[in-house]
Amino acid sequence: MEEKKSPVVYLAVVGASKASPEIYDLAVAVGRQAARRGWIVVTGGLGGVMEAAPRGARETGGLTLGILPGGDRGEANPFIQVAVATHIRHARNSIIAHTADALIAVDGEYGTLSEIALGLKLGKPVIGLKTVWNIPGVVQAESPEEAIEKAAALLKRET
Amino acid sequence: MEEKKSPVVYLAVVGASKASPEIYDLAVAVGRQAARRGWIVVTGGLGGVMEAAPRGARETGGLTLGILPGGDRGEANPFIQVAVATHIRHARNSIIAHTADALIAVDGEYGTLSEIALGLKLGKPVIGLKTVWNIPGVVQAESPEEAIEKAAALLKRET
Amino acid sequence: MEEKKSPVVYLAVVGASKASPEIYDLAVAVGRQAARRGWIVVTGGLGGVMEAAPRGARETGGLTLGILPGGDRGEANPFIQVAVATHIRHARNSIIAHTADALIAVDGEYGTLSEIALGLKLGKPVIGLKTVWNIPGVVQAESPEEAIEKAAALLKRET
Amino acid sequence: MEEKKSPVVYLAVVGASKASPEIYDLAVAVGRQAARRGWIVVTGGLGGVMEAAPRGARETGGLTLGILPGGDRGEANPFIQVAVATHIRHARNSIIAHTADALIAVDGEYGTLSEIALGLKLGKPVIGLKTVWNIPGVVQAESPEEAIEKAAALLKRET
Repeated sequence: MEEKKSPVVYLAVVGASKASPEIYDLAVAVGRQAARRGWIVVTGGLGGVMEAAPRGARETGGLTLGILPGGDRGEANPFIQVAVATHIRHARNSIIAHTADALIAVDGEYGTLSEIALGLKLGKPVIGLKTVWNIPGVVQAESPEEAIEKAAALLKRET
Repeated sequence: MEEKKSPVVYLAVVGASKASPEIYDLAVAVGRQAARRGWIVVTGGLGGVMEAAPRGARETGGLTLGILPGGDRGEANPFIQVAVATHIRHARNSIIAHTADALIAVDGEYGTLSEIALGLKLGKPVIGLKTVWNIPGVVQAESPEEAIEKAAALLKRET
Repeated sequence: MEEKKSPVVYLAVVGASKASPEIYDLAVAVGRQAARRGWIVVTGGLGGVMEAAPRGARETGGLTLGILPGGDRGEANPFIQVAVATHIRHARNSIIAHTADALIAVDGEYGTLSEIALGLKLGKPVIGLKTVWNIPGVVQAESPEEAIEKAAALLKRET
Repeated sequence: MEEKKSPVVYLAVVGASKASPEIYDLAVAVGRQAARRGWIVVTGGLGGVMEAAPRGARETGGLTLGILPGGDRGEANPFIQVAVATHIRHARNSIIAHTADALIAVDGEYGTLSEIALGLKLGKPVIGLKTVWNIPGVVQAESPEEAIEKAAALLKRET
C-alpha cells in the first residue's frame, strides 16, 4: 500500500544573496546539472546564488525547495516551487544543513560560512566552488561539473 | 524571463501523530480533496493525521510537504514528497503556521492546539474538524468537504 | 569543586503584550509572589503581561529572564535582567515552554494560547488566571496567590 | 518608576564541548576577566569551553547565561546560573550570536565556526584565541587578556 521512497538526493546550493554575473552563472550551472541527475535543489530562497541554482534546475525540469528566513512565502524568488516560510531568520541555515544530503557553496559570505560549518558539523559532504575561505573538510572544485561529480562521489561512498 | 508564479494554495492539515481509523479516514479525505483543487498539502510529516492527509493527496496526484521536528528526512512518512528536516522540534509548529495559507485541524492534541493558536495569531483561516476545544476564531466543519469548502471561501475573501 | 545547583524554579508568566490595568496588576502580583519564593520569572520580554510580571519580581529583588522574539536585546522591557535575543519570532514560544518548570497564563491572546498548548504538551503545570479559553489540563485560579500556590503544589507533586 | 538599564555587556565565549586542559584554562581565564569587567558570560551551556568560561566567571562573582541545544535545563553545566532550554539544537547558535555584544572563540570546531560566521554576519566583534581557521574579520588574540581588551576596545568604538 505504501509508496516506495525513491532515494532522492537533496542538494543545498549555498551562497550570497547578491552575486556577480560570473558567480550567478556558475550557480545556474550547478542547479542545471543537479536537476539532470534528478536531485532536488534546496536554497535559502532569496536572490543571488539562492536564485541562480533553482533557475538552472527549473530549466531542466528539476524540483526546487526554498527555505526562507522570513515568514512570508512571497519573498521566495520565482524559481522556487516549494517554499517554506520559517520566520526564524539566520537560524534557518541550520534547517538547510539538516535537510540537505550534500552542500555546494558558490562563493559566499558569512551566512554561507555558517552553512558550510553546520554541514561539516553534521558530517555532510561540503563542496566549495570559488569560496574564499580555506576550511579543512571542504572539498574544493574548479567547475560546476566537478562540484556535482565530487558531491555525487561522496554521496555514493556514504551508502 | 521569469516564470509566472501560480497562486498555489498551501493547506496545512494538523492533528495528532496517532489517529483512530475514523480520524485517519477523515484526514485522508481532506488531503484528497485539497489535492483535487491543486493545493499543496503541508503537515508535520510524521504519523496519524500527519500521514493520512498526504496519503489522500498522493492518491490524487497532489504535492505534499512535510516539515519534520527532527533532523533526519528519513523520519518522514512515505507520502511526503518534499521533506524538510528542521531539528527544532515543537518550534517547527510555527513554521507550519507561517508556510500555510490556511489550516485544517482534524481532532488533535496539544501540539495541534499550538498550531491552531499560531495560525489564528497570524490571521490565517483555521478550520476545525472534530476538534475538542472551543476556540473563538476557529471555523467548525462537520465533514472534509465542508472543511475544504470553508477554507476555500475564506481564502477567496482574503484576496 | 563544582557548585551545588540549587533547584531553583523557573516560572513562565505568559500573556498578551497589551494589558488592561486590571490584568497588568494581576501579573505584577504574580511576579511579586514568585520572586518571594525565590523563583526566576520568565516572560517573552515585551510589554503588557510580559512586562508586568518581571516588574513585580524586581520589586521583590527577584531574577527575571526575557526570551525575546526579535534579534535585539534592546527590545526587552526595563524589568528584564537577563535578555535573550532569539530572532526566531513566535517559534520562541516553544523555548519559553521548555525553559519553564511551570506556566501561569494571565488573560492572554492567541500567542499565549500557543504557549499554554506547548506547556501542556511538555507535561508542565499550566495555571490559568482570567484566561478565556476552557482548555482541559489547565488549572484555573482566581487570584495571583492561588495561581502561585497551585503552581507550587503541582511542582512539589512532580518531585 | 522604571529601572535604569545599565549598559551591561553580554560576551559569548564559544568553543568545543571537549577541551584540552590548556584550552580549558584559557577559557576559564577569559570568563574570569569578563566577569571582572561586569560582563555577563554567555555560552552554549554544555562542557569544554562552554563550561570553562562560566566557571571562571563564577569564581569572580559574575553572572552566567547558558543557551542550551536541548529541551532540559538539567543539561546545563553547574556554572550556568540562568539556563535557557531551547530544544532547537544547532539553530541555537544563531541565538547566541544575536544575544551577544561580542564573541570570543577559544579554539573550537565546526559548531564554533558557525557561531563565528553568524557573529560576523551580524556585525559583532569576533575575537579568535587559538582558533585554527583564518577567517577575514576575526580579530586574533594571543592571550585571554588580549582577547578581552580587544573585545572591550571594539565595543567602545561601536558606541
